[in-house]
Amino acid sequence: MKPRILEITQGVLEKNDRLAQALRTRFKASEVYVINMVSSPGTGKTAFLEATLRMLIAEGHPAAALVGDLETENDAKRLARSGAAVRQILTGGNCHLEAEMIETNLQDWDLNELEYLFIENVGNLVCPASYDLGESLRLVLLSVTEGEDKPLKYPTVFNSAAAAIITKADLAEAVEFDREAALENIESVRPGMVVIETSAKKGQGMEQWLAYLKAQRQKQYPTAKAVVGVK
Amino acid sequence: MKPRILEITQGVLEKNDRLAQALRTRFKASEVYVINMVSSPGTGKTAFLEATLRMLIAEGHPAAALVGDLETENDAKRLARSGAAVRQILTGGNCHLEAEMIETNLQDWDLNELEYLFIENVGNLVCPASYDLGESLRLVLLSVTEGEDKPLKYPTVFNSAAAAIITKADLAEAVEFDREAALENIESVRPGMVVIETSAKKGQGMEQWLAYLKAQRQKQYPTAKAVVGVK
Repeated sequence: MKPRILEITQGVLEKNDRLAQALRTRFKASEVYVINMVSSPGTGKTAFLEATLRMLIAEGHPAAALVGDLETENDAKRLARSGAAVRQILTGGNCHLEAEMIETNLQDWDLNELEYLFIENVGNLVCPASYDLGESLRLVLLSVTEGEDKPLKYPTVFNSAAAAIITKADLAEAVEFDREAALENIESVRPGMVVIETSAKKGQGMEQWLAYLKAQRQKQYPTAKAVVGVK
Repeated sequence: MKPRILEITQGVLEKNDRLAQALRTRFKASEVYVINMVSSPGTGKTAFLEATLRMLIAEGHPAAALVGDLETENDAKRLARSGAAVRQILTGGNCHLEAEMIETNLQDWDLNELEYLFIENVGNLVCPASYDLGESLRLVLLSVTEGEDKPLKYPTVFNSAAAAIITKADLAEAVEFDREAALENIESVRPGMVVIETSAKKGQGMEQWLAYLKAQRQKQYPTAKAVVGVK
């Protein structure tokens, strides 16, 4: 890349960071805990999110989701089955979500009525790493079918995330998933990273994930009352 | 995106197109057939390419590979086991390969000694779609574990490719792969697209893929002699 392009890229990132900071302030004022989910295409972000939303809604915790894709409204339709408020963001070819898209799509939602807001990023292990969306928690997802070397090959996204979710754990045996190698690779790229092994299909690990999520929200908003029952 | 950024992006793409065109002329002069492989991370590009190289080398067809990754030399090491000449291109955070990287990394290779040159792009279903590498054939790979909806969600990359390889077909049953839906989605995005179902692990479909590949080279270079035995 030429210096001029670097400079422009820098400008885009700085503008995004400013917008993300403004979003973060807004999220904090409403005590809404925001999760930015990043992974390859096909890792199972939508299935994992649908299961998470169902569990939260069933317990009375109000949650909503913004879902980024290049094309199609399929994911929003799937997620809406959980009963949560869901909005699809079509990026029209853009490989990541940006803070401005979040701001635009939040407009008429009352954040005070929410405990959790999930943002499902575009399926991509590279580009979303550079764009802060004002989230409380960045979650990287990795399926057992993708190969244990992904943390080594995409270190930036693993480094920018606070926790890793291993998905499709029910297929681990069928695909000869080398669990020790995967955990070792995550640990080498991001020492001490929280890793939770899940199967949205079979339910494995989902209670552990929910307990972690609630504890994180509690940590960020120690005096927050649960808004259970608002919707 | 602001107009100024669009303008710069346009400039980058135009420069890439010019370089790609120069590469294409060079490839044609040497009658080397060049394949640009694109897919998500974890689709199994490397396993598929390793099996392909082994088969070509065993039959005496000289082939080489350039392998793009953000980090690690792992893939080049794996591919070198096939006996083919292999070079790793580290993009250092870049989400795709560009024509300039291909040109730089080809420097001391004698293209006249090759029949096939494979370029394994960075694992990404978005960014590589916009960058011509001077290839003869763009191949999009999709694994049965990724979900049947990927062609609909990433239409640009499917539209820019001439053929689709379905990988990990041996896992189709375990992951309840909906073959009809996948084929229908590919057809709706790219009518008439060639689709070959493969398992690099079990060998399924690999002969069919090789026959297709050879026929394509024959079509592009009808008078080419096979350089069998040069290396």
